[in-house]
Amino acid sequence: MTRIHESDSFHTDMAIGNLTYDKKITALLVIDPYNDFISEGGKVWDRLKTVAEANGCIPHMLQILNAARKAELRVFYALHHRYRPGDYETWKYIAPVQKAAWLHKAFEYGTWGGEIRREFEPQPGEIVALEHWCSSGFANTDLDLQLKKHGIHQLIVMGLIAHTCVEATVRYAAELGYQVTMVKDATADYSDEEMHAALAVNIPNYASAVVTTTEIVDSIFSTSQLTLEPEEIHQ
Amino acid sequence: MTRIHESDSFHTDMAIGNLTYDKKITALLVIDPYNDFISEGGKVWDRLKTVAEANGCIPHMLQILNAARKAELRVFYALHHRYRPGDYETWKYIAPVQKAAWLHKAFEYGTWGGEIRREFEPQPGEIVALEHWCSSGFANTDLDLQLKKHGIHQLIVMGLIAHTCVEATVRYAAELGYQVTMVKDATADYSDEEMHAALAVNIPNYASAVVTTTEIVDSIFSTSQLTLEPEEIHQ
Amino acid sequence: MTRIHESDSFHTDMAIGNLTYDKKITALLVIDPYNDFISEGGKVWDRLKTVAEANGCIPHMLQILNAARKAELRVFYALHHRYRPGDYETWKYIAPVQKAAWLHKAFEYGTWGGEIRREFEPQPGEIVALEHWCSSGFANTDLDLQLKKHGIHQLIVMGLIAHTCVEATVRYAAELGYQVTMVKDATADYSDEEMHAALAVNIPNYASAVVTTTEIVDSIFSTSQLTLEPEEIHQ
Amino acid sequence: MTRIHESDSFHTDMAIGNLTYDKKITALLVIDPYNDFISEGGKVWDRLKTVAEANGCIPHMLQILNAARKAELRVFYALHHRYRPGDYETWKYIAPVQKAAWLHKAFEYGTWGGEIRREFEPQPGEIVALEHWCSSGFANTDLDLQLKKHGIHQLIVMGLIAHTCVEATVRYAAELGYQVTMVKDATADYSDEEMHAALAVNIPNYASAVVTTTEIVDSIFSTSQLTLEPEEIHQ
Repeated sequence: MTRIHESDSFHTDMAIGNLTYDKKITALLVIDPYNDFISEGGKVWDRLKTVAEANGCIPHMLQILNAARKAELRVFYALHHRYRPGDYETWKYIAPVQKAAWLHKAFEYGTWGGEIRREFEPQPGEIVALEHWCSSGFANTDLDLQLKKHGIHQLIVMGLIAHTCVEATVRYAAELGYQVTMVKDATADYSDEEMHAALAVNIPNYASAVVTTTEIVDSIFSTSQLTLEPEEIHQ
Repeated sequence: MTRIHESDSFHTDMAIGNLTYDKKITALLVIDPYNDFISEGGKVWDRLKTVAEANGCIPHMLQILNAARKAELRVFYALHHRYRPGDYETWKYIAPVQKAAWLHKAFEYGTWGGEIRREFEPQPGEIVALEHWCSSGFANTDLDLQLKKHGIHQLIVMGLIAHTCVEATVRYAAELGYQVTMVKDATADYSDEEMHAALAVNIPNYASAVVTTTEIVDSIFSTSQLTLEPEEIHQ
Repeated sequence: MTRIHESDSFHTDMAIGNLTYDKKITALLVIDPYNDFISEGGKVWDRLKTVAEANGCIPHMLQILNAARKAELRVFYALHHRYRPGDYETWKYIAPVQKAAWLHKAFEYGTWGGEIRREFEPQPGEIVALEHWCSSGFANTDLDLQLKKHGIHQLIVMGLIAHTCVEATVRYAAELGYQVTMVKDATADYSDEEMHAALAVNIPNYASAVVTTTEIVDSIFSTSQLTLEPEEIHQ
Repeated sequence: MTRIHESDSFHTDMAIGNLTYDKKITALLVIDPYNDFISEGGKVWDRLKTVAEANGCIPHMLQILNAARKAELRVFYALHHRYRPGDYETWKYIAPVQKAAWLHKAFEYGTWGGEIRREFEPQPGEIVALEHWCSSGFANTDLDLQLKKHGIHQLIVMGLIAHTCVEATVRYAAELGYQVTMVKDATADYSDEEMHAALAVNIPNYASAVVTTTEIVDSIFSTSQLTLEPEEIHQ
C-alpha cells in the first residue's frame, strides 16, 4: 500500500529523498474535516473509525496542519456541500454518491455535524473554497481560482474520504496541472479495500509523491528554512 | 464485482429493470480504442490482453458500437493525447501517469499504434472530442461542449483502461452533471485488482448503472423503439 | 442598438418570429438583482439610475420574472460575490474590476446592499448559483452544473450590469454551449456608451436573439401553452 | 481610447511605470495570426485592413513576438477552430458568431487561409493550445493547463479580432485568475466602433494594463535583464 512515486527532475525547486518544497508555490489542502466525518458522534464517524484510528488519521492531520501553519504554508479547505432543505429535489439527474448524501443529510447546514471540527477551524488568511456537490473539491467551485490567485502549483493533500473526495480532488488537481503530494496516513475510509483502491491503485498515478506524516512534516520544516532569504537568516 | 446501482426515480424517461433510455439525450462514449491498447501488436496490448480476453472486452465493445449505430444513438469518442515530439519537455509539473505516457510514447502520432482500431473508426456524424493530456476525456477538451451542443445528458461508457481513463471520465461526467451507465464487460485493465478498484469500488458511486453488454444492447434497441414517433411507426 | 439576430433552424423546438421556447429546456437567468444595484439607496444605484430608468429596467425585470414564474419556467440566479472582510487581501493577482469591488465593498455580506431586492427574492424551487468573483456567473461556480441538472439548454437573460456581468455571462453561456436570448430593455449600465458596447456590439455575436420585454413575455406565455400536456388542457 | 489602468501593488515582482515583468511567470499570448485574418488575400483581411493598418497591427505584433523570443519569454498560441467538413452540421444549438464561421468556412483546414502567417509560425518550445470553437482561447481547450504546466501567471496579449477572440480571451484570463496586459496597437477590428468597445470600454476592466508596443517591448527587455542569473551575466 505504500508505493512511493519518487519525484522527478521536472521541478527543480523540489528535492525529493529529503522532500523539500518551495513555500511560495506550495499549499496544504485540507479535505472535509467536518464533525460528521471526524468527530465522535458525527453521522459517518462510526463507519470511518476503524480505519481512521488504525491509520492515526486525526492526530496526523492535526500535526500536519500545525506544521503548515508554523511554516507559513498557505492553507486551503475543500469542503463538500452542506445539506440544505430543497437540495436535489428538482434535479433530473443525480449520481449515486449524491443520492447517498441526500438520504443521510450529510453535513447538514446549521447543525454541529456540518461544522468543521474545532481544532481544524480555518484561521484568518486561510482560504475556504466554495462547497462542491459531488466529490472533487475543484468541480464547480473556486478552488482552482483561489490557488491561482495565490500563485500555488504544488498541493499537499490530506483529509477524508480516501476513495471519494480525496481521490477525486487529487485526480482533478493532476488533470488541471497541479503537482500533488498525498499524505497516506492522514486519511481514512470505510474499509481497507476502499483505502487500498485509493492509496495503492489510483492516487499514485496522479500524485507525484505518496508520503507519511513524518516525511511531510520534516519536509515542510526544511522547506520553510530553505526559502528564508539571506537577510532573514541573519536577523 | 457486479454490484449494480439500480437507477432511480429522478429521470422519468428512464425505466430501469428493463433499462430504456431516451435516445434524444443519450449517447455512447467510446474511450481510447487505439491500436496501442486493443490491437494485437499494440504497445500496451500485452499488458491488457489477459483481463481483456477474460472479459470479452473487444467483441463486447464492437457489439455495443454496432447496436448504438443501428439504433441511431449519437456516438462520441474521448481520446488520449497522441504523443508528438516536444511534448512534455518544457513542463515544470507532470503527473506520474503523464511521465509514463511520455516514456512509452503512447499512441504516437502518425504511427499505427496511435490510430483507432479499424472496426472502431468514427463514421460521419460521430463526434471525436479534442485529445486529453491526463486521464479524463473532459479535462481541457471540448467533450462537455460537444455533448451540450447535441443535447446529451446520459452517457453509456465503454473502453480502456478501466481504472485510469474510464474511471476518470466517469467521475468527471458525474461531477459535471451527466447521468452515466458503465458497461462492465466492455472494458479492461492490467490486473484484476485494478479492474476491481474501478468497477466495484469507485465507478458505482458515480455511474447510476453498471451493466453488462447484453443488458445495454437490449436497452438500446428497446430505446430506439420507444422513441419512434407515431407517424414513424405507421409508415 | 436593436439589431436582432433572428434565431435559426438549428433548434427545431424554437419558432422565432413569434418566439416560442420549449419550457422543459429553457430557463430565466436573473443577474445580480442586489439592492446595491437596483434599489434607491444602493451603493451603485445613482450611477445606474439614468440609463436604468430610461430603459424601464426594473419594471421590465419584474414583469419578466412574474411571467416566467406564472409559466413555470425554471428561474436561476447568478450573483456576484458579496464582500466579506479578508477578501482579496492575500491575492497576488487581481483584475481592475475586482479591485473596484474591493474598494467599494460592493454587495457587502450581512448588509441591506448585499441582499436581493425584495420583489426579486428567490422562491422555493428556484436555483441560486454559487457567487462568482469576477463578472461571469459561470466562472468558478456551479451554474453550469445546476443548469445541466435541470436539463436546461436555453437561457433568457436579464439583469445588471450590461457590459460587465451580463455580457460576461452571455459570452460564457455561448462558449459553454447554451442558446441565449438577451432582453435588451431589462438591463442597465453606467452610460449609453457602455450599454451600446454590450447590447449592440458584443452580445449579438453570442446571443441568438436580442429582444424586448414585450416580445419575451409574449413568447413565454405562448411557450407555456405549447408545452401543456393534454390532461392539463382539459382540466 | 487609451485609458491605462495602472498596475498595482498586488504583485511585488511587477514595477509599472517602467513596466517590468518576472520572466519566469510571464508569457506572450498570440491570438489567431491566421492568413485569413492578417495576410493580403485572406478571407477576412479586407474587412480588417483599414483599422489594422491605421493601428500598425501587423508590424507591432511582429516586433513584440521577436522581442519576446529574444528575451526568452515563453510564447503561447490561442487559435480558433479551423473549419473542417461536417463541422456544426449536427449541433442543436449554435451561437451567431459560430454560424458566421460556418458560413464563411473561416480558417479552413488544409488551406492557406487556415495556416498561421509565415512570420508568426510557432517555433520549437512554443505552445500551441488546442483550437477553440467560439471566441475565448480558454474555453474547451488546454490553454489554462498549458499555462499552469509552465508556471505562467501573467499574460501579454496581442492578436485578432479585438472585440471577439481578443476580448473573450482577456475576459476568460481574468475570470480564471491570470494577470493580463493588453497591447492596444497590436490588434485590429472591423471598425473603430468595435475596436473602441473592446479596448476602451471592456478590456480595461479585466486587463491590469493596456499598453503600446513601445512600452511592452521596453518592459520585456528590462524584464529579461532583471531575471538574468548572476552566472548568466558573467558568461
